[in-house]
Amino acid sequence: MIDLHYWPTPNGWKISIMLEECGLPYRTVPVNIGKGEQFEPGFQALSPNGRMPAIVDHEPLGGGAPLAIFESGAILLYLAEKTGRFIPSDVRGRYQVTQWLMWQMGGLGPMLGQHGHFKLYAPEKIDYGITRYGNEARRLYGVLDRELGKTGDCVAGAYSIADMAIFPWVMTHKAQEISLDDYPHVARWFATVRARPGVQAGTALGKELRQQGMSEDAKKVLFGQTKPGAAPQPSQ
Amino acid sequence: MIDLHYWPTPNGWKISIMLEECGLPYRTVPVNIGKGEQFEPGFQALSPNGRMPAIVDHEPLGGGAPLAIFESGAILLYLAEKTGRFIPSDVRGRYQVTQWLMWQMGGLGPMLGQHGHFKLYAPEKIDYGITRYGNEARRLYGVLDRELGKTGDCVAGAYSIADMAIFPWVMTHKAQEISLDDYPHVARWFATVRARPGVQAGTALGKELRQQGMSEDAKKVLFGQTKPGAAPQPSQ
Repeated sequence: MIDLHYWPTPNGWKISIMLEECGLPYRTVPVNIGKGEQFEPGFQALSPNGRMPAIVDHEPLGGGAPLAIFESGAILLYLAEKTGRFIPSDVRGRYQVTQWLMWQMGGLGPMLGQHGHFKLYAPEKIDYGITRYGNEARRLYGVLDRELGKTGDCVAGAYSIADMAIFPWVMTHKAQEISLDDYPHVARWFATVRARPGVQAGTALGKELRQQGMSEDAKKVLFGQTKPGAAPQPSQ
Repeated sequence: MIDLHYWPTPNGWKISIMLEECGLPYRTVPVNIGKGEQFEPGFQALSPNGRMPAIVDHEPLGGGAPLAIFESGAILLYLAEKTGRFIPSDVRGRYQVTQWLMWQMGGLGPMLGQHGHFKLYAPEKIDYGITRYGNEARRLYGVLDRELGKTGDCVAGAYSIADMAIFPWVMTHKAQEISLDDYPHVARWFATVRARPGVQAGTALGKELRQQGMSEDAKKVLFGQTKPGAAPQPSQ
């Protein structure tokens, strides 16, 4: 059994999708990031960066005591290794997937996070930030579109954890005011991936939590305005 | 022989350090990011995101044709697997390293990049950005400090690619106006890692290029002001 410490956001969905795709048994432990549950010591013992998702695998690869892992990219690599699924076993294929997973972790995720912040959440309208991250978001969509124009249905050959990492961030394109009409290869890929039952189930996990919307209090917690020593959360 | 497509910045240093630590034979191919060489088609064929570092391994793990890899985090994992060094072979140790590598890729690197941009490079002084990313930079230093308080000399047990990924970004702390006096465990770790001959050699690679300083023209290229369709570069 795997405990998934989770809230329905793009980074959380990466792991709920992978667990559903693999059919691994798991139970969900909600981490209400609007209520600041990510700051609780019990959670930080698992995830010292104070971010969900994190997992605890009670029957870990390699055996032994339960294994806790944080950072969505590390969890995806672990679950792929554990199940032998959604990453090729040959070196060349494996690093093709790994480099696009890293691209999502280091580029698409953080930069769409900033774009969303300045466009949607920042209490002040700051044109410089909106322009800076809007340009970068469009550049990254362009990179993905060119790659999918070459590789076809999936980012790195066959459907993999790289697609699972990227998809949840592309799900937010409407809120981010990015039109997939401008990125036809992304649009085609997006429709294909979205149709997968595992993706449907993964992104539906805890939907009712999200439908509560984000209260003004929750925004204050998330953006670090209520806890003077606490952080803004640039990349949820 | 490995070709290292490189410019002396924190992300470039990660790989020059690893190559020096492993004693792998390599040759350096400069990618002058101030002159926009990262936009050239030849380079983008290796690195579709248009970012250095990238490598081409002419004797790749698994054999076959030369293998190109982009994204510093993917390159570090590849070189560690190729050499069997700087990542534990057991599952538990391996994912301990992988999660901190991902933390650097998804958090410390991008957020210090934004902090540096608003603090040092942005043509306008934007208090909101300076505060937002300054807070996040200090939070991340705090996370690292607490972890090093528990783990001792290295981020994830023994010296690993996680340390090599994090160190080059902490090298910039003075420019980022972050005092290591506030993070005593980071200060101790920093001194230990800096003293390693491989780290000295890796961070010295191409120093003469960096000493040319960054011209105003270079800044315009980097921050996307000269190529209207080109991107700002949020996380160099």
